[in-house]
Amino acid sequence: MISSKTKSSMFVPEVVIQRIPIYLRILQEELNFGNNVISSKNLGNRLQMSSAQIRKDLSYFGKFGKQGQGYPIAFLVDKLKVVVGLEQNWNACIIGAGRLGQSIINYPGFSPEGFKIVAAFDSNNKSYSDENSIPILGMEKLSKTIQDKSIRVAIVSVPAIEAQKVIDLLIIEGIKAILNYAPISPKVPNDVVVRNIDPILSLQSMTYYLKRN
Amino acid sequence: MISSKTKSSMFVPEVVIQRIPIYLRILQEELNFGNNVISSKNLGNRLQMSSAQIRKDLSYFGKFGKQGQGYPIAFLVDKLKVVVGLEQNWNACIIGAGRLGQSIINYPGFSPEGFKIVAAFDSNNKSYSDENSIPILGMEKLSKTIQDKSIRVAIVSVPAIEAQKVIDLLIIEGIKAILNYAPISPKVPNDVVVRNIDPILSLQSMTYYLKRN
Repeated sequence: MISSKTKSSMFVPEVVIQRIPIYLRILQEELNFGNNVISSKNLGNRLQMSSAQIRKDLSYFGKFGKQGQGYPIAFLVDKLKVVVGLEQNWNACIIGAGRLGQSIINYPGFSPEGFKIVAAFDSNNKSYSDENSIPILGMEKLSKTIQDKSIRVAIVSVPAIEAQKVIDLLIIEGIKAILNYAPISPKVPNDVVVRNIDPILSLQSMTYYLKRN
Repeated sequence: MISSKTKSSMFVPEVVIQRIPIYLRILQEELNFGNNVISSKNLGNRLQMSSAQIRKDLSYFGKFGKQGQGYPIAFLVDKLKVVVGLEQNWNACIIGAGRLGQSIINYPGFSPEGFKIVAAFDSNNKSYSDENSIPILGMEKLSKTIQDKSIRVAIVSVPAIEAQKVIDLLIIEGIKAILNYAPISPKVPNDVVVRNIDPILSLQSMTYYLKRN
């Protein structure tokens, strides 16, 4: 059960919010294995985290299990989905329909997870591909389409040099959640959340271990 | 200067290792702005971290600045690059040359950051594209090519259902660093490091904020 105190006032650190989708993925796997209950210790093992940290994270959102009995998984999944807004679908658009943008448009993984790509935009009309199930529109259609289709999330896959300008435009149109594939760290106001897909940082964080091998 | 104690024995938490490339990027930007020195406070402001955390992170690798004088940026960049193995280039290969794989092959950002894609593999020979500067080889060439070209890093962009099998193969061939674009959490031995590019988790970690708007 989620207490009213939790709902109304408690500040939840961003790192905790970022871990919830990982919890949900693991819990869903456990359900698929046929398990109904999981202890904080086992959940911690699967996530390489301490059981104390797991309990602390979940306590932000309510009281989900009884001491010594573990968490009821289906209940926990339902509650966490509501907490992070994944009990509903969100409409998304893509800006930049080059090779990367088209691979994203054609990626089948977004829709089952609650994100429906309903429009794509590109400043270059020649990039239109009839292979895609959604049309690629000119940038002049951005404002009206975001309103008409209730788009709340934008995925940016334009070249680095264009990315900040595109993100500024999206913010003017009221977009508050941006998944950025361009290799820049965009500047955004406090009420806008950005996640950067950054393969370079990922690669650079592995070579330390290669060097020590 | 890096003390011998640091070099030989101190365990550095993985989260710290993952932050070093971010430090390097910010420090390089400061150099490009013409700055030669940065305080832990200013570095913290740029990274939204406390100056105490910055000093603690850097102390794993040596003593880089004098109290009250800030860090000499160029010196710090050089030292950190050596720490994480970015003073040298690393050869990489891509497995999976579909639309996503080809967008990665053609991404110009890897090479300037020390990662040279020297081979691509695909089980489907039809995916060969002469637009790419590197040939796409059949999977039967994997073993010999990894040896011949001293490939140390692999980028996996095959469909989810093939990803674990491909990663198992790479591990047999001695690869210890894998950048995985497939939407799975692969199982690997302790001496192999994997970074997952996971747009779904990124999207799912933003909707909490949309819901509260």
